[in-house]
Amino acid sequence: MGIRLRGIKFGSIILILQVVFIILIGVLADYHSTDHIQTSSYPYPNFQDVNVMIFIGFGFLMTFLKNYGFSSVGVNLLIAVVCIQWSFIVRGFIHADVLGGDGFKLGVPEMVTSNFATATVLISFGAVLGKASPSQLIIMGIIEVILAQINEYIGVDLLHTKDVGESMFIHMFGAYFGLAVARVLYNPDVEESSKEGSVYHSDLFAMVGTVFLWIYWPSFNGGFDPVYKERAYLNTFLSLCACTAVTFAVSAMLDKRGRFDMVHIQNSTLAGGVAVGASANMPMKPFGSMIFGAVAGLISVLGYKFLSPKMAKSLRIHDTCGVHNLHGMPGVLAAIGAAVLAALSDNWSKSDQYGIFPETLPKRIVNETGNLTVLGGMGRSALEQGGYQIAAAFITLAFAIVGGVITGFIMKLPIWDAPKEDSLFDDVDNWELPEEGVPGAVRPNHYKVSEGNPESPIREKLLSTTTTPGATTLTQ
Amino acid sequence: MGIRLRGIKFGSIILILQVVFIILIGVLADYHSTDHIQTSSYPYPNFQDVNVMIFIGFGFLMTFLKNYGFSSVGVNLLIAVVCIQWSFIVRGFIHADVLGGDGFKLGVPEMVTSNFATATVLISFGAVLGKASPSQLIIMGIIEVILAQINEYIGVDLLHTKDVGESMFIHMFGAYFGLAVARVLYNPDVEESSKEGSVYHSDLFAMVGTVFLWIYWPSFNGGFDPVYKERAYLNTFLSLCACTAVTFAVSAMLDKRGRFDMVHIQNSTLAGGVAVGASANMPMKPFGSMIFGAVAGLISVLGYKFLSPKMAKSLRIHDTCGVHNLHGMPGVLAAIGAAVLAALSDNWSKSDQYGIFPETLPKRIVNETGNLTVLGGMGRSALEQGGYQIAAAFITLAFAIVGGVITGFIMKLPIWDAPKEDSLFDDVDNWELPEEGVPGAVRPNHYKVSEGNPESPIREKLLSTTTTPGATTLTQ
Amino acid sequence: MGIRLRGIKFGSIILILQVVFIILIGVLADYHSTDHIQTSSYPYPNFQDVNVMIFIGFGFLMTFLKNYGFSSVGVNLLIAVVCIQWSFIVRGFIHADVLGGDGFKLGVPEMVTSNFATATVLISFGAVLGKASPSQLIIMGIIEVILAQINEYIGVDLLHTKDVGESMFIHMFGAYFGLAVARVLYNPDVEESSKEGSVYHSDLFAMVGTVFLWIYWPSFNGGFDPVYKERAYLNTFLSLCACTAVTFAVSAMLDKRGRFDMVHIQNSTLAGGVAVGASANMPMKPFGSMIFGAVAGLISVLGYKFLSPKMAKSLRIHDTCGVHNLHGMPGVLAAIGAAVLAALSDNWSKSDQYGIFPETLPKRIVNETGNLTVLGGMGRSALEQGGYQIAAAFITLAFAIVGGVITGFIMKLPIWDAPKEDSLFDDVDNWELPEEGVPGAVRPNHYKVSEGNPESPIREKLLSTTTTPGATTLTQ
Repeated sequence: MGIRLRGIKFGSIILILQVVFIILIGVLADYHSTDHIQTSSYPYPNFQDVNVMIFIGFGFLMTFLKNYGFSSVGVNLLIAVVCIQWSFIVRGFIHADVLGGDGFKLGVPEMVTSNFATATVLISFGAVLGKASPSQLIIMGIIEVILAQINEYIGVDLLHTKDVGESMFIHMFGAYFGLAVARVLYNPDVEESSKEGSVYHSDLFAMVGTVFLWIYWPSFNGGFDPVYKERAYLNTFLSLCACTAVTFAVSAMLDKRGRFDMVHIQNSTLAGGVAVGASANMPMKPFGSMIFGAVAGLISVLGYKFLSPKMAKSLRIHDTCGVHNLHGMPGVLAAIGAAVLAALSDNWSKSDQYGIFPETLPKRIVNETGNLTVLGGMGRSALEQGGYQIAAAFITLAFAIVGGVITGFIMKLPIWDAPKEDSLFDDVDNWELPEEGVPGAVRPNHYKVSEGNPESPIREKLLSTTTTPGATTLTQ
Repeated sequence: MGIRLRGIKFGSIILILQVVFIILIGVLADYHSTDHIQTSSYPYPNFQDVNVMIFIGFGFLMTFLKNYGFSSVGVNLLIAVVCIQWSFIVRGFIHADVLGGDGFKLGVPEMVTSNFATATVLISFGAVLGKASPSQLIIMGIIEVILAQINEYIGVDLLHTKDVGESMFIHMFGAYFGLAVARVLYNPDVEESSKEGSVYHSDLFAMVGTVFLWIYWPSFNGGFDPVYKERAYLNTFLSLCACTAVTFAVSAMLDKRGRFDMVHIQNSTLAGGVAVGASANMPMKPFGSMIFGAVAGLISVLGYKFLSPKMAKSLRIHDTCGVHNLHGMPGVLAAIGAAVLAALSDNWSKSDQYGIFPETLPKRIVNETGNLTVLGGMGRSALEQGGYQIAAAFITLAFAIVGGVITGFIMKLPIWDAPKEDSLFDDVDNWELPEEGVPGAVRPNHYKVSEGNPESPIREKLLSTTTTPGATTLTQ
Repeated sequence: MGIRLRGIKFGSIILILQVVFIILIGVLADYHSTDHIQTSSYPYPNFQDVNVMIFIGFGFLMTFLKNYGFSSVGVNLLIAVVCIQWSFIVRGFIHADVLGGDGFKLGVPEMVTSNFATATVLISFGAVLGKASPSQLIIMGIIEVILAQINEYIGVDLLHTKDVGESMFIHMFGAYFGLAVARVLYNPDVEESSKEGSVYHSDLFAMVGTVFLWIYWPSFNGGFDPVYKERAYLNTFLSLCACTAVTFAVSAMLDKRGRFDMVHIQNSTLAGGVAVGASANMPMKPFGSMIFGAVAGLISVLGYKFLSPKMAKSLRIHDTCGVHNLHGMPGVLAAIGAAVLAALSDNWSKSDQYGIFPETLPKRIVNETGNLTVLGGMGRSALEQGGYQIAAAFITLAFAIVGGVITGFIMKLPIWDAPKEDSLFDDVDNWELPEEGVPGAVRPNHYKVSEGNPESPIREKLLSTTTTPGATTLTQ
C-alpha cells in the first residue's frame, strides 16, 4: 500500500507541476511576432543538435550502470521535460517585465536556452545518479533551474561577462551544485554496493551518448554567436580532438596493464568541449583551442584516477558519473582561460575585441577636430573585463555550492522517498522490469520473486540459495 | 526445400518490384528543373531529421521485442525502401498528369513526402509486428501506399483540409489500417506466446528509437510550412514536453507498486507529437499545444493499461506496439482539435486565418466605392472549414478500416508464407542468427540444434530436457 | 611489467603526435578570414551529418564483433581524432604554399575534408578489425592519410577528374589499401578464432551504425557541390533504396533456408551510396542512380557470399568487415560509371556538361564574325575526360595497393605490439573490462581470473573446468 502511495504521490507532484506550467505559460507566454517568417538568429539545425545532446547524449551517457539503464535514459527524459517547461517560465520572469504586465515570448531561441537550462540539471543528475528518487530529482531540478538562471543573469546581464558555450553558467554550476547535493546526500552504503558498475553492453549504450555529445558539441558552443560561429565550431572541434587523443594516451599510461579505461573514454574525451566553451568564439588561433583540449583531457583522466576516489573517501562526496572531472574542473579551466583571453583582448583586432567584448568599447571618444563622439561602450579595460570574468566564476562557484547544499537538505526530507540501500543504482524501485533482467548483471531478478512465476517453479528456490555474482543461470 | 523456395519466392517478389520501379521511374521521372540551385521550399536539414525518424526512430522503437530485433530494424528498412520508391510513383500518378503524357519531378520535397508515405506503412507494421512475414508486409505496404495517398489527395486536394504534421493522413490512417489488418490476421496463438516481451537491453534499444522520434518530431510537423514553421516547432516541442510529463505521472499512478512502465515511456511520450500534428502551425498560443500534449499522454497511457488488453480479448485485435494508443487515439484527438480550431479561426488575425486556411478568404469583395475585387478564395466560413476537417477525418477512418480489412484478407492468402505459431515474435524464420542468441531470452537457440554443433555436445541434450524460461543454459 | 610498458609506449606515441600537431598547427594554421560571417559554401548541417557518419556510423558498424565492441567504437574514435588533426596538416602542405611561407586556413569546409580523409583510414580499419593493435592502427593512419591525400591531389588537381562523393579517392583507396595491409598482416590463427562472430545484441549495435550511415549518405555525396547538391541528394537516396531492396532479395535467395544474413544487411545495403558517389551530381536521370544501386547491392552480397571466403583461403586476404564488398567493388563500379558518364557528357545540356566538367569547355572559340573569345577551358573532349577518370581510378588502385603493402610491412615491425593469437578479435588487451563480460559470448571472462575475485570463489574453479561455448556460466 505504501508502495502504491509512492506512485500516486509522485504522479500528483508531476501533474500539479504540469497544471501550473500550463496556467503560467497560458497567462504569460506568446509566440515571437517574428515567428511567421524565420528571422531568428538561432539556426534551427543547431537547436536539433543541442536537442540530441540533451536527450540522447546525456540520457545514454548515463546508461553505463548495468542495473540503472531505464532510469538513466528515462528519468533523464522526465527531468528534461519538467525543467524545459519550468525554465521557460523562470527565464520569462528574469528576462521579461512579467511583473510589470508584459508576458514573454517563445520560439526557437528559447527552445535552445531551455535545453541549456536543463543541461545544468542533467549534469547535477550525473553526480547523484543511482542515489536519488525521481521525486528528489524533480525538486532538485525545480530549485536548480531558478538558481542557475539567476546566476547566469548576474554573470551575463549584470557583470557583462562572456561565456558563449556556457562553461561557467552550465557546466561549472551544474557540476558543483551536483557535488554539493551529493555531499549532503552522502550515504556510506553506496561504497558497499556491488551494483555500481557496468556490463559490456551497458558500456556500449553509454558510448552512444558519449559519441553524440562529442559530435554535436560544436553546435552547442557556437550556435549562439551569429558572427563568430564558424570560429567557435572549429575551436570546439579541435579542442575535442586534442582532448580525446590525450585521454587515450593518459588512460593507457596510468593502467597497470596498459589498457584503456572505458570510464575515461566515455567522459574525459568530452572535457575539451567544456574547457573551450567559454572562449570558443575568441581569436585564440586554432592551436590555442588544442591546448585547452589537451589540458582538459589530462586533468579529467587524472581526476577520475586519483581525485574522485579521494573525494569519496575523504570528503564523502560520491560522484557517480564523475561530473567533477568532466564538467567541474574543465569548467574552471574554461573560466580561467576566458578571463586570461579577455585580459589580453586588447591585442586582438579591434573588430574582434569590440565584437566579443563590447564592454571594452570606450564610452565616448574625442576625435582630432575636438568633437566628441558617443560610442556607447562601457569603457572597460581588457584587464578589467578579465577581472569581471573571474568574478563571475567565483560567484558561480559560490551560488552552486551554497545552493547545492541547501537543495541537498531539502532533498533529504523524507517526503521525497529516497531510495533504500538495496535499490541504490538499481531500477527496481522505479520501473516494471522484464522478467529476465540484465544479462550478466549482479543479481538474479529478485524483484519478480514475490509475485511468483508459475512458469518457473525452480526459480525461487535458486534465488534463495545462490549469491554467485555474474551469473544469469545456475544450477542444481 | 520448401524453406529454400520461400527465400527464392520472396527474393523474386522484391526483384520484380525493383525492376518495375526502375522502369516506371525511368520512363516517368526527372529532376526538378530547380534542382540546380537550391530553391526548394523544403529545408534539407529537416529532411534528414525526418529520415532519422523513419529509419532509426521507427526501426529501433520496435526492437523492444527480445527475439525480434533483427526484423524490427531490418524489415523496417526493407519496407521503407520499397514504399519510398513506390510512393514516388504513386504520388507521381496522383499529383502529375502522368496519363496525359507528363512525367513527374523528384527532389528533396519528394524525398520527404515519400518518407511520410512510408511512415504510414511503418505505423501499420507496428500493429502486426512479429505476426506477419516480410512478404505479407511488402504486399501490405504496396496496397497501403496507394490507399493512403488517395485518401490524402481527397483530404488535401479535394476537400482542402489542413494537416501540417499529417496526424490524420499518416497517423490515424496508419493506425486504423494496421488495426484492421491485425483483426483479420488474428491468431489466438499470439496470446499464448511467451516471446512477446522484452529483455532489459532490448528495451534500451527501443529507447534509442523513442528518443530520436521525440527529438525530431518538431521537424516532422513543421517542415512543410514555410511561413509558420517556427510556430509549428514550438507547439510540437511544448506538446511533447507536456505529454511526457503526464505519461510519467499517470504511468506511476496506475502501477500497483508506483513504478513506471517502459511501454508507456517508449510510446505514450510521443503521443503529443501526433496530437498537435494537425494544428501545429496554428495560433493556439503556447499553452494550447501543452493541453493537446497533456491530454494525449493521458489517453495514451490509459489506452495501454485498459483498452489494449480489452481490444485483444473482446475484439480480437492484437496490437503489438499499441499503435492505437500512440497513433490512433492521439490522431483522432488531433483531427478533432484541428477542426475546432478551424471553426474558430475567424477569431485569429486575418493573416493567420487566410495564411493557414486560404479557403476562408472570400471569393470576391465589394469595396466602399462599389468596385468588385476578386480575391480568389473559396469563401468558406470558419465553421464550414471545421466541418470539412471533420469530414476528412471520417473519410480517413473509413478508408483505413475498409482498406485494412481488404488488405488483411489479401495478406491471409497462403502464398505470402505467414509465420507459424512458434515463429511468432521471433526472428528465427527470417534471419540467420548468431549461435548464442538473445541473452536472457525465453528460448535456447533451438534453431541451431538441427545443424549440430560439434563444440557443444552437451547442448542438444539440454535443449531437449529443459524448458525453463529466463535461462540461457543450465545443466546437469 | 612488459604489459605496463606497452601502455606507456602507446601513450608516448600519442602524446608526441599531439604535441607535434599543436606545434605545426600553431605555426601554420589560422582561421579563414571569412569565418566572421558565415560565407563558406559548405553548409554546416551537412558537416554534422558527415560527423555522425564518421563517429557513430563507422564506430558502431564495427561493433558487430561480440568481444571487440569497445575497440570498434573506441579505437574508431581514437583513429579519427589523430587522423583529423594530421590531415589538417597534410592537406595544408599539399594545398597551400606552406613551404613558400604561407600558412593554411581552417574552417567548416576543412572540418569536412578532414572527416573525409579520416573515412579513408576507417575503411582500412575495417579490413584489419580485431587483428591490429592501436599502435599499429595509428601508424597505419599516419601513413595512409599522406598517401591518400597525395593520390587525391593527383586525381583532382592534376588530372582534373571528378568524384563528388569520393568513391575513388576515399572508398576505393581505403578498401584496397586495407586489403593490402590485411594481406601482409595475414595470420592463419584468425581462421581458427571462435571470437570472430557476433551475438544478438552486438548485431543490433552494429545496426545503429549501419542505419546512420544509410541516412546521412546523401549529405556525404552532395555536400561539396554547391550547385547540383539536390541532384546528388536524390541520386544517392534512390541508389541506396534500390541497393537495399536488392540486398534483401539476394540475401534471402542465397540462403539455404531463405533467411536474411545480418552481414549483408549491415553492409551491402550501403554499397549503393558508394557506387553512385563518383557521379551523384551528374544528370543520369533518377533511374540511372537506381541502376547503380541495384548493381551495387547485387555484387556486394555476392562478394560476401562467394568472394570473401575465397580471398581469405586462396589469397590469404582476411577482410574482417568485408570492406572489399562494401567499399572496394562498389568503388570500382563508381569509378567505371563516372568514366562512362563523363565520356557521354557531351550529350548533356551544356550547363550540366560545363558545370560538372569545366575541363570540356573549349580553350577558346571563334565566333561567327571571326572574333576569338578565350573561354579558359581545357578543351578536353568528353571521351578524353572519361579516359582521365579511368586513369585516376587506376592510379588510385596502384597507390592504394603498393602503399598498403609497404604500410603493412611497417606495421609488422615488432615495436607496434601486434595482438597475440588469443587476443585476436578481443578487447582484452586494450580495455579494462567489466567483470561480467559479454552476455552469450564465447568465453568466460578469463581476463579477470588472474586478479582473483573475492566475491566469487567458485568462479575460478568453474573457469578452469569448462570450455563449453555459448554459456556464461555453468557448473558442477
